[in-house]
Amino acid sequence: MGWAQYDSQVCSIARASELIGDRWTLLVLRDLSNGVYRFDDLQRHLGIARDVLARRLGRLVAAGIATRVEYQDPGRRTRQEYRLTDAGRELRTVMVALMEWGDRHLSGSQGGAPMALRHDACNAGAHLELVCDSGHLLDPAKDVRLDPTPAARLAG
Amino acid sequence: MGWAQYDSQVCSIARASELIGDRWTLLVLRDLSNGVYRFDDLQRHLGIARDVLARRLGRLVAAGIATRVEYQDPGRRTRQEYRLTDAGRELRTVMVALMEWGDRHLSGSQGGAPMALRHDACNAGAHLELVCDSGHLLDPAKDVRLDPTPAARLAG
Repeated sequence: MGWAQYDSQVCSIARASELIGDRWTLLVLRDLSNGVYRFDDLQRHLGIARDVLARRLGRLVAAGIATRVEYQDPGRRTRQEYRLTDAGRELRTVMVALMEWGDRHLSGSQGGAPMALRHDACNAGAHLELVCDSGHLLDPAKDVRLDPTPAARLAG
Repeated sequence: MGWAQYDSQVCSIARASELIGDRWTLLVLRDLSNGVYRFDDLQRHLGIARDVLARRLGRLVAAGIATRVEYQDPGRRTRQEYRLTDAGRELRTVMVALMEWGDRHLSGSQGGAPMALRHDACNAGAHLELVCDSGHLLDPAKDVRLDPTPAARLAG
């Protein structure tokens, strides 16, 4: 049974893309993941329209990827900042995958990768590997296959 | 120096998102990666408007992520299908990261993960790991930091 015989929407890639497959959302997630928490700081750093940012943040909160936290600067009114939830922090793997690909394919003419991902404790460079539960290191482009589970659904 | 001090666009995540950070593009990449190569097959499987699909495919070809290949069914005129380039195949890591996150966070109420990723040779389940060059297994949410390189640029 080929891939095209399965329902395109009954798919974790489709579900995840529906939620975060959007350039602004990916940049908001990147910034939240790197300590930019406040609406005004996000707005300024990303150069994004305020209503677009508010909509993206609202979707992330509704999806349980981010939460609103109140803060108050001295003498100012209470405002809100945004923090990734545990589910949101797990999206770091998606960020790293995008970063590695961009480093390899889109940074060559720009002086190379702008940021290096390092293991905080030992300073060695960090990278993603695809491995199997038997401990083999895999080439994502060649060594794997997708098997349908009972939750798969054939296309209408 | 905090993340917000660096130029938001001089970033591999930003560059990659600009190119593929779009729900339809991610689904096209998923399908190309799973053997759905022909325009009509992609159009039917994704349920996407033809002009939208043509635009997405055109962008992928222009970016060197996919190439056009001619084919001819017996008695029919020559048509084109699309194949991922090596750079395109490397995006599988992004697909797998999205799939793993969707499996964990968006499939629970849907009967579980619809597809299982397996090592083709040994049948064991396959998953991404973040590791460092010294061989430590890392938690992407906790164990890593980003260091600017000489290619980083401060925000205007």
